[in-house]
Amino acid sequence: MAVYTEVSDEALRAFLADYALGELLAFRGIAEGVENSNYALKTTAGDFILTLYEKRVDPAELPWFLALMQHLAARGLRCPQPVEARDGAALRQLAGRPAAICTFLPGVWPRRVRPEHARPLGEALAGLHRASEDFTATRPNGLGPAAWMPLLDRCRAGGDAVRPGLIAELDAALAAILAAWPAPGALPVGQIHADLFPDNVFFLDGPDGKPVVSGIIDFYFACTDLLAYDVAVCLNAWCFEPDLSFNVTRARALLAGYQRVRPLLAEERAALPLLCRGAAIRFLLTRLYDWMATPPGALVTRKDPLEYLAKLRFFAAAEGAGALGL
Amino acid sequence: MAVYTEVSDEALRAFLADYALGELLAFRGIAEGVENSNYALKTTAGDFILTLYEKRVDPAELPWFLALMQHLAARGLRCPQPVEARDGAALRQLAGRPAAICTFLPGVWPRRVRPEHARPLGEALAGLHRASEDFTATRPNGLGPAAWMPLLDRCRAGGDAVRPGLIAELDAALAAILAAWPAPGALPVGQIHADLFPDNVFFLDGPDGKPVVSGIIDFYFACTDLLAYDVAVCLNAWCFEPDLSFNVTRARALLAGYQRVRPLLAEERAALPLLCRGAAIRFLLTRLYDWMATPPGALVTRKDPLEYLAKLRFFAAAEGAGALGL
Repeated sequence: MAVYTEVSDEALRAFLADYALGELLAFRGIAEGVENSNYALKTTAGDFILTLYEKRVDPAELPWFLALMQHLAARGLRCPQPVEARDGAALRQLAGRPAAICTFLPGVWPRRVRPEHARPLGEALAGLHRASEDFTATRPNGLGPAAWMPLLDRCRAGGDAVRPGLIAELDAALAAILAAWPAPGALPVGQIHADLFPDNVFFLDGPDGKPVVSGIIDFYFACTDLLAYDVAVCLNAWCFEPDLSFNVTRARALLAGYQRVRPLLAEERAALPLLCRGAAIRFLLTRLYDWMATPPGALVTRKDPLEYLAKLRFFAAAEGAGALGL
Repeated sequence: MAVYTEVSDEALRAFLADYALGELLAFRGIAEGVENSNYALKTTAGDFILTLYEKRVDPAELPWFLALMQHLAARGLRCPQPVEARDGAALRQLAGRPAAICTFLPGVWPRRVRPEHARPLGEALAGLHRASEDFTATRPNGLGPAAWMPLLDRCRAGGDAVRPGLIAELDAALAAILAAWPAPGALPVGQIHADLFPDNVFFLDGPDGKPVVSGIIDFYFACTDLLAYDVAVCLNAWCFEPDLSFNVTRARALLAGYQRVRPLLAEERAALPLLCRGAAIRFLLTRLYDWMATPPGALVTRKDPLEYLAKLRFFAAAEGAGALGL
């Protein structure tokens, strides 16, 4: 469920009056997404997405996200483009929340990932990295390596109730990951999406019937960090089967697609298994925290943290980048 | 949250191949609705709603609902119109569920009801009753008076935990309602919506800036029952303030709108307070049952049954139809 804030007709009407978007035709809550409230908005000017930013998003950071999306869209990346109101401002207020209207992107996110999705996904991710090369404003990764130990500490008291021995295993895994993490300057840094899961990538069928990326959405974890870490997030999010076995064919296609647009440096390739462990523990820790913090009856799906324990173990056992399809 | 059944790309593509709706452009889950899974579907032919009927809907009854919607749409009522596939069938299968595509209706449902909504709502409800006069197939009201005592019995064991003394109060109220309920033939019967809450009615601004009904949706409680009972449902659903005080101005406008299109008979007017008590106890009982049956952590909003206890008490104390705005 992704509607946390309800918007009254009067508030919506007043809000839209600041835009040159014609007459309101429809306004429906969207089920996807867990962080913000999203509405499908239709006016005589077309289809749009209205997002109300909920409490997990820092309002001070919204201008950076919107500027990044504007920058990427101007370079041809298919991502939501913030729509400016008559006064030129895209970031506004609605129902007591920061709010923005973005362009609607066609496409369907893959409920079940197929091998044919992997290559265009990799190409799109590298395209995002290339298109943001000249976006110089930076945003630290609030869920990067520096955040992982504090997150683990917050899970320490109740974590073993989720799975006996979990905290000790994570302590050991995290210590090893942090000790080996690339030093600043060791790997290329840029703007990364940092949350490129299947529900954030839309596809349409191309002329040959094969899927083509038609849109990348939800940039609200985007930040300035290791480019190859974004690849590691995708390997975690896209390349495991439902039974949590690693699909190396899909990984190979993802990496080939990525490298067709932006070849990985030798250092990046060598670091990839480590970065994958880092990405696995990042999603494990946030899911574990959410799992323990989500009250029963809350209107969000709690995502199983232990899925990422299996992924973490897989990557820890992987012998070099070859095991990941490189 | 109104997406219970996920649809894979392949299944969706195969499903759409049976329709002459052009190419798939987008497919997004809709947050509204609690009974079925609803998706906003966009193709090169336009916007549609794809509904997967979940377990609460009896598949054997779906043809009746779809035929009623087709009948009403053909008579100019703005309601979803089932889209037939190439073989002429509108009711199909997708992801193991009965499924249908219906036309998309413009408009916005009122998050906060204003006085100006009431008159067009009443006119639309009467219009629905008039337009279905020549729809002769009947469907019994599965949540009509005959269902209320069995529902109360199923809540008997745990009901007082929701509120002390609740079951005794409902026993007395229900006995009085059932004893006074109109005998068959005493009041006009026809096809009723039976669930015309604000989230099932879309409005757009008319040329004079006043709201106009642009669509009525969700006919899956529709049935053949007392027409005035449908009015009673609306008085329950639309005419109370958030603090549960009765807004008689709004009720008067609703009834005036209704009677402009279909004047109530003297017997219907006299029965209205009783029918309002019946409608109140119907929603009270289903909400109470759902409240007790919904496991913590389920992805649906539990609606407060006690809201309808306040409404039941109000209607029980109302002295005649005059107190309701007639």
